[in-house]
Amino acid sequence: MREVAVIGIGQTKVQENWDKSLRDLAGEAVLAALEDSNFTQIEGVFVGNMMSASANHQQHLGAYISDWVGTRFIQAIRLESACSSGASAFRAAVMAVASGAINSAIAVGVEKMSDSPINEITNSLATAADADWEVTQGLSFVAINALIMQRYLHEYHWKHSDFANFSINSHKNAMNNPFARFHMLITQEQYAKSGMVADPINLLDASPTGDGAAAAVLVPVENLNTSGNRNIITVAGSAAATDTISVQNRKDPLWLKAAEISSKKAYSQAAIQPQNVDFFEYHDAFTIMAALSLEACGFAERGLGPKLAVDGEIRLEGKIPTATMGGLKARGHPVGATGMYQIIELVEQLRGQSGENQISGARIGMAQNIGGSGSNIITHVLRTL
Amino acid sequence: MREVAVIGIGQTKVQENWDKSLRDLAGEAVLAALEDSNFTQIEGVFVGNMMSASANHQQHLGAYISDWVGTRFIQAIRLESACSSGASAFRAAVMAVASGAINSAIAVGVEKMSDSPINEITNSLATAADADWEVTQGLSFVAINALIMQRYLHEYHWKHSDFANFSINSHKNAMNNPFARFHMLITQEQYAKSGMVADPINLLDASPTGDGAAAAVLVPVENLNTSGNRNIITVAGSAAATDTISVQNRKDPLWLKAAEISSKKAYSQAAIQPQNVDFFEYHDAFTIMAALSLEACGFAERGLGPKLAVDGEIRLEGKIPTATMGGLKARGHPVGATGMYQIIELVEQLRGQSGENQISGARIGMAQNIGGSGSNIITHVLRTL
Repeated sequence: MREVAVIGIGQTKVQENWDKSLRDLAGEAVLAALEDSNFTQIEGVFVGNMMSASANHQQHLGAYISDWVGTRFIQAIRLESACSSGASAFRAAVMAVASGAINSAIAVGVEKMSDSPINEITNSLATAADADWEVTQGLSFVAINALIMQRYLHEYHWKHSDFANFSINSHKNAMNNPFARFHMLITQEQYAKSGMVADPINLLDASPTGDGAAAAVLVPVENLNTSGNRNIITVAGSAAATDTISVQNRKDPLWLKAAEISSKKAYSQAAIQPQNVDFFEYHDAFTIMAALSLEACGFAERGLGPKLAVDGEIRLEGKIPTATMGGLKARGHPVGATGMYQIIELVEQLRGQSGENQISGARIGMAQNIGGSGSNIITHVLRTL
Repeated sequence: MREVAVIGIGQTKVQENWDKSLRDLAGEAVLAALEDSNFTQIEGVFVGNMMSASANHQQHLGAYISDWVGTRFIQAIRLESACSSGASAFRAAVMAVASGAINSAIAVGVEKMSDSPINEITNSLATAADADWEVTQGLSFVAINALIMQRYLHEYHWKHSDFANFSINSHKNAMNNPFARFHMLITQEQYAKSGMVADPINLLDASPTGDGAAAAVLVPVENLNTSGNRNIITVAGSAAATDTISVQNRKDPLWLKAAEISSKKAYSQAAIQPQNVDFFEYHDAFTIMAALSLEACGFAERGLGPKLAVDGEIRLEGKIPTATMGGLKARGHPVGATGMYQIIELVEQLRGQSGENQISGARIGMAQNIGGSGSNIITHVLRTL
């Protein structure tokens, strides 16, 4: 397998985009990535999207987007793994280029949620859970996460307020990200007073929906002139693993086994340990997922994920900076696009283009995208050449 | 890239399955394929499905099916390219094994359409077309094909009744396929009297919906003991290409350019010419698509696809036998599963297991799965070792 480089990135601002269609958003991100890469000979298009069937009455996004951006007649396909569809698209593109099957690819994640009534979005999100054994029992997607968080608070004796630190960090970091949905600091007091969504998850534990697209251009490193080029970012690890789709079927509902498996594989591919990771774009769809990810990936002992947040170690200057451009919580979570936003943020940091949020000397970054309630988890490690 | 073999196949009967869920169907096909392969160490699961989001309120089928069949904790993903989702899943599995990324894979196509009201199925099928520029103009999926057929009859002066021969052939071949939806011969008279769906497409030009699943187990040939084993079927060609998603944007709406591109690539990979293909599982969702495929793949001159049907050359004993187990028209078209049924039928013929429909001495078979109105076409060539 060949080493793969990301040579171009593009993204749109996460927001309610009333004047842009699904295809406009995807096109904007792809064309920005192509311009950034100064490369046009694309041989494959890999699209991550979760809910365009219901939200936009449009599927077949491989052909649809390839047609729109002017890369017709090549291979193009959509990948779906619920909220980790973005990372699945990136991973498929990486594998296609690494294998030698093609010499270049675009990966793009896109989601356009605003056009749908919120109850339809809630129903669509629930298609990530088990229709027969979770959803028809009355569980929405946030309710499943609430049950996990309830159990976590009970087992490990954390106060709900301790989780505020995850969201405060994400909102702080989003202040300097022009593509983020929210540009507002939040406080412990606001968190404490925030409206309940599904006990104990309140509004400030939960990431917002949004419309957005993010894209990357990939080529094999062997095709690049690497001498003296500090701007080449390579994919050092790419791994995916599933778990049971229903949380109830897991022996331990407080352990993201698929995160453990996929991160260990990615560490092994990159020949690193968790302590070598300079920053971590985790999947803070809900604060509880941030805590569980830190534990399963080896950044914290079991039950001690929140301690990293309470101690400030997840901040930009901490031991393991997370959500460096706002994370799902404040950059926003256009579900099928999120995994690609994470990749774009890794590349920015590794290129030294993250402005006031730049992690000094960042050489190795990790992104983890979670589909369902931990049922399909994809981990990527990127590094400077 | 390593040579890949199909070592196990499984399928369910295409029908209205009121007593089996999406997961039951997929599980039945996968477990049958595993049993057929006498192999259990699966490293990746690739699922083809088009419409479970709307028809079954369930997405995330990679994790969902992997969980159900007992292959948890490995990589699993759903691929979607509308009606060619099945072939996309097979192709992704082939590429993953060929590249060396994994040493074994399951590809499974599944669709469960009967639970949904037919108007919802019609809407779901239309997500394969352009929501903004085709569907909102009032075009259903069959209507788009009807416009193409109308134009074809006008340009090439065929009579509508000439197309009956495609459907008569498919229904005849399905008689000996226990997994086919229809077991009834049809006649020119029945075709002539058949109810109009969208002029000129009548009921007997159109394939039926249905519930079904088909699966295959893939491993690299290098891991097999090949000496004296006549049962090893290899993937000699795998190629995909897109075209514009809207038919109106094509310079020539009567030419399946994506079929031409992907078949030429597959021929080149397999080092063959069209005349070396012993039989062809084409995508006869509508009879017009059968004609266009024969032309674009080089089996007939432009405008002369129907001649092969009229002359009987598509029959089992003809020059290029097609739809040897009933095709989409009579085996049935559970959309996201269809591409996998085609693969299973190739393997059966090449193994010599097609009973009364066996093509004598078949060594090279081709399957072509069409997504949308020709907008994402995937071609596979399989052969005996």
